[in-house]
Amino acid sequence: MVFRTDITVRWVDTDALRVVHYSNYFRYIEAAEEELYRSLGFTFKRLNEEYKIAIPRVEALCKYKAPARFGDILTVTLFLGEKGEKTMRYDFEIHRKSDGELLCNGYITIIALNLTNWKATELPPDLMGKVVTALE
Amino acid sequence: MVFRTDITVRWVDTDALRVVHYSNYFRYIEAAEEELYRSLGFTFKRLNEEYKIAIPRVEALCKYKAPARFGDILTVTLFLGEKGEKTMRYDFEIHRKSDGELLCNGYITIIALNLTNWKATELPPDLMGKVVTALE
Amino acid sequence: MVFRTDITVRWVDTDALRVVHYSNYFRYIEAAEEELYRSLGFTFKRLNEEYKIAIPRVEALCKYKAPARFGDILTVTLFLGEKGEKTMRYDFEIHRKSDGELLCNGYITIIALNLTNWKATELPPDLMGKVVTALE
Amino acid sequence: MVFRTDITVRWVDTDALRVVHYSNYFRYIEAAEEELYRSLGFTFKRLNEEYKIAIPRVEALCKYKAPARFGDILTVTLFLGEKGEKTMRYDFEIHRKSDGELLCNGYITIIALNLTNWKATELPPDLMGKVVTALE
Repeated sequence: MVFRTDITVRWVDTDALRVVHYSNYFRYIEAAEEELYRSLGFTFKRLNEEYKIAIPRVEALCKYKAPARFGDILTVTLFLGEKGEKTMRYDFEIHRKSDGELLCNGYITIIALNLTNWKATELPPDLMGKVVTALE
Repeated sequence: MVFRTDITVRWVDTDALRVVHYSNYFRYIEAAEEELYRSLGFTFKRLNEEYKIAIPRVEALCKYKAPARFGDILTVTLFLGEKGEKTMRYDFEIHRKSDGELLCNGYITIIALNLTNWKATELPPDLMGKVVTALE
Repeated sequence: MVFRTDITVRWVDTDALRVVHYSNYFRYIEAAEEELYRSLGFTFKRLNEEYKIAIPRVEALCKYKAPARFGDILTVTLFLGEKGEKTMRYDFEIHRKSDGELLCNGYITIIALNLTNWKATELPPDLMGKVVTALE
Repeated sequence: MVFRTDITVRWVDTDALRVVHYSNYFRYIEAAEEELYRSLGFTFKRLNEEYKIAIPRVEALCKYKAPARFGDILTVTLFLGEKGEKTMRYDFEIHRKSDGELLCNGYITIIALNLTNWKATELPPDLMGKVVTALE
């Protein structure tokens, strides 16, 4: 299974080429990730406060195929990539909803970070379990 | 006296009208404020960590006169507006450096916030003193 | 009548004080304005391309009352303020949805800009009519 | 040779983990690229208007090693990666200036886009020549 969420391109997301600025796709992917966790009953806040972990990105790749424009509705799809004890990779695709065109794809790799000592730590098994169940 | 700093308009600051997005002028003003404090030997970080205060904005106004465009160098000027015990107003003007055209003006009002109890508190007198000396 | 839309605070919207950066409320207001036009059958794009006008902001004010935090759902409410031939003011309020607390309020004033000569022009009567019907 | 430019981390660049948001490094890299072109006498604007080309990114990768924080001064270094007729890759590294720590590295690949037909085209030889001379 995969996780999908729709995001509307805002005016502020565009640049003077009249297309979405390349850095903003990384915002869209993170928004999808936030919605995935929310759908599973987690938030970054709860991860920070209860689990004392954060899940920053250690790697992010995006290949741009076609531009998104103001007002487009984008469908962000998250797939489960490789998973380790401390890291997990989400592969993603972003399509324009109206015609299904693939706009970009890539991945982000997250790592569990112990906020007490700022060192890598195990991803919380219940979060991991729920993500795996949702995406596998 | 006033405080002046130059800021270059980045591509990402523009929108599909090929001008700077209106929200980004508030980033420029804050960057100028950061440079003012830096020039006086303060940082937001030191205010947070040593003084246990933050200085969030309680009011922000901007009147837009003419658009800035990609590559423009902007001169942000800060003036001292009203000051109270807990709040201070910075009036600002942003001009295009090349021809001196006024692009926007307005103000931001900051408040001292005690980070222990998240209540308004007195602005640190040494910060205030240095700002007043620099801007008055 | 008023126009209301809900917006979720994203991680990227927060700053190191763990609250929403003051400039981002101006993004939320614009997103609400975009949703208002969409609900009336208009888009900035169509205004640009068919009407050859843009509607940039000439003034923006925000008074900050309480901070929004990551994951908060915000309700942005738009009210009709003063309207002229070429300008229109939207008053706004942003409340936290969960407890109804007022987080900020203010206004933005838009102007109709003829994209052929970049001069102020009359707001399109059909847009204006629909906005007035929706908000009055 | 390489190209280097310094960038100060702004408050707005940070997120609620009190570190720079991962998407903002892509802004820093682009700012460095803008400064590179400026140093060679080019701007995105001139590329758009005179050459009728744009140079959007077709791929972007960043590996995050250590976080940048508010007030840090970052040194962005650009290296010449692979170059083709229509594309060019910039490898980058971002170090914290004060202690030289490597914060992230990666690459961006740009493509020349003919703005008349929105198809890939040859990179302007004079731009390419100057970049190669500056970075090789």
